[in-house]
Amino acid sequence: MDTYIFLVIALILMYTKGMSLFMRRLHLPQVVGAVLAGILLGPPVFGVIAPSETLELLAEFGVILLLFSAGMETDFNQLRKNLKSSFIISFLGVAVTLGAGFGVAYWFGKSPVESFFIGVVIASVSTGIIVEALHELGKLKSKTGTILLSVSLFDDIIVIGILAVAMGGAQGEFSLYSLGMTLAKMVGFFGFAILGGLFMNKLYNSIYEKFGRTKRLSVFAVAYCFLMVYLAEWLGLANIIGAYIAGIAFCNTKCVEYLETKTNVLSYMLFTPIFLANIGLKASFDSMDTNAILFTVFFVLAAVVSKFLGCGLGAKICGFTSRESFQVGAGMIARGEVSFVVASKVTAVGLISPDIFLSVIIVSLSTILITPMLLQLAYKEKRKEKSTQKQQST
Amino acid sequence: MDTYIFLVIALILMYTKGMSLFMRRLHLPQVVGAVLAGILLGPPVFGVIAPSETLELLAEFGVILLLFSAGMETDFNQLRKNLKSSFIISFLGVAVTLGAGFGVAYWFGKSPVESFFIGVVIASVSTGIIVEALHELGKLKSKTGTILLSVSLFDDIIVIGILAVAMGGAQGEFSLYSLGMTLAKMVGFFGFAILGGLFMNKLYNSIYEKFGRTKRLSVFAVAYCFLMVYLAEWLGLANIIGAYIAGIAFCNTKCVEYLETKTNVLSYMLFTPIFLANIGLKASFDSMDTNAILFTVFFVLAAVVSKFLGCGLGAKICGFTSRESFQVGAGMIARGEVSFVVASKVTAVGLISPDIFLSVIIVSLSTILITPMLLQLAYKEKRKEKSTQKQQST
Repeated sequence: MDTYIFLVIALILMYTKGMSLFMRRLHLPQVVGAVLAGILLGPPVFGVIAPSETLELLAEFGVILLLFSAGMETDFNQLRKNLKSSFIISFLGVAVTLGAGFGVAYWFGKSPVESFFIGVVIASVSTGIIVEALHELGKLKSKTGTILLSVSLFDDIIVIGILAVAMGGAQGEFSLYSLGMTLAKMVGFFGFAILGGLFMNKLYNSIYEKFGRTKRLSVFAVAYCFLMVYLAEWLGLANIIGAYIAGIAFCNTKCVEYLETKTNVLSYMLFTPIFLANIGLKASFDSMDTNAILFTVFFVLAAVVSKFLGCGLGAKICGFTSRESFQVGAGMIARGEVSFVVASKVTAVGLISPDIFLSVIIVSLSTILITPMLLQLAYKEKRKEKSTQKQQST
Repeated sequence: MDTYIFLVIALILMYTKGMSLFMRRLHLPQVVGAVLAGILLGPPVFGVIAPSETLELLAEFGVILLLFSAGMETDFNQLRKNLKSSFIISFLGVAVTLGAGFGVAYWFGKSPVESFFIGVVIASVSTGIIVEALHELGKLKSKTGTILLSVSLFDDIIVIGILAVAMGGAQGEFSLYSLGMTLAKMVGFFGFAILGGLFMNKLYNSIYEKFGRTKRLSVFAVAYCFLMVYLAEWLGLANIIGAYIAGIAFCNTKCVEYLETKTNVLSYMLFTPIFLANIGLKASFDSMDTNAILFTVFFVLAAVVSKFLGCGLGAKICGFTSRESFQVGAGMIARGEVSFVVASKVTAVGLISPDIFLSVIIVSLSTILITPMLLQLAYKEKRKEKSTQKQQST
């Protein structure tokens, strides 16, 4: 047993909470404070804490619980209503970002195959950061908040789908077969998720009516979440899809508020601070030369601008107002856990040189710092515009 | 990242909760259900889950949070009042158990040194199980409940103290120096704990008065708990002492109920089920021959009877009634995490053959199954006696 982990967790909890409170005083998003706490504690600054397997696992729990919570907060009817526009926005966002990532990498002399996978790495979004930022602004259940969550859900599916097929293709496997397998797995997963969700929904309503608020409700709900996480991961899908889908199963039960309260305690008391600090911990600025810095600058710009334009354009096409399209574009900039997962999977099989990892971390950190600020701006501007519109209409 | 862990946790949560509910229907302690769930899931029965480092870590978190919670539930004034009797009961319990363990081991042909350390292994108690069993009976704040917690606290200190000194002696280090060091560390730890506790107590009362029930209170409290856990472990004391002492720091603050509620959610939603199931998982009955079985039978008897008599006698000497002495003796039977820690430390340096480990697990499992039942009996009998006394006195 590594006893050092207890000191590490104590420091993470104290620093993230302290920095979050400090950020709130500066009217900045608390997420930024928690990630900054991780950077401060990590190797490049004070060097008190190094990334570790254990922290990685606890951070993963944090992402899962965050997504589970997000699923429970989903307005199911609105999600169904938004299915088509979410898909269009997500598809455009992924396509434009993949193209931009490919372009920058190819321009810096990478091979076409490597450039393609570099594009895939930044094509995903960090649902965790989006949720945390929206949650903080109280916009999780707003029109664009629900769209952002549905779009990020589609993003995960599309990116992981592309990854599964393209990795098979690039490694010489029969791509039509792997394409078919991936599609079959997705259909199977969502089929099971819908049946399981309907069953849990009915079960929970009847238990709640019979026994009221009882601990077994929250314990079994968390167990169901972990089960769906395992199922998604076992099928080669991103595990966070499992957590989100599991949350949706409970989103319109009568006891959803009780479940949310209990899950949120589990999150904010331990796992969310570790998840956010762990992202900051991964920042290391040692092996950067001029060329790498230049590449990273363009890489960050490509990641930010392409996602913003792609998703914003998608939203506009789907009939959203300019302000709403701005909100959607701004929200989708955040990169995080899925980018890290994709990058490590692709570097592990040698399709991308491991040098890219540092740049991906910087993309993630930049977008994590930018997204909440932009979102705050986007939702603040909306109110102003509304009052302007009112003045104009009167 | 080992994705299997998500399935493992889902199964543990479902089985422990399911078995606990089943046990409750049979009017048996829920702890037993959770441990039995672990045995069922583990290698000897269904073999679905194997013990792992990750589970070990999460179980450790469970023990820590359980002890932290127990500390917060402590009646500080009663603890101070019980200081002398707790020490006498603990000292007698440890002395008698160590002697009995030594006797059984020596009788089965072990060397005097090995026999001594086998005695030390069963001299400790499982505060976690005691707390869980008392909590379930609603007796944590009763007179004997507080005594049991104080006694188990002293047990940890005495056993870890003996271990530190005797291991140093057996490995040829200067024992007077190591004795002095251990004592100095204990004095240092408790000195720091008292100062830190007084500071936290004052701080929390003033924060609570200013801001009311705010998340930062619970997050910083958990951080302080982990800090004390690290400090205790860093000084070579059992880390659970840190958690318990950290809990005591908050036990008479105005916000203690709020902190307890939040910590309990963290415990029962994830960590306590894993802690209890993990004990069951460690049971393996493969390498047992007739001699080992016979040794284990006597070993279990020695562990149960000696602790019961030693602590019961101690309680009687301190002026407790026969019923109360019975409760104290019954409660102190439980062995668990500290026995495992001691056994693995001692086997690691070669002072005991690793064969003992299986017997220690069986001692732990037997006492874990016996303790809650005996405690239930002990507290049930008390009511009957009271009513009999009333009838006699009228």
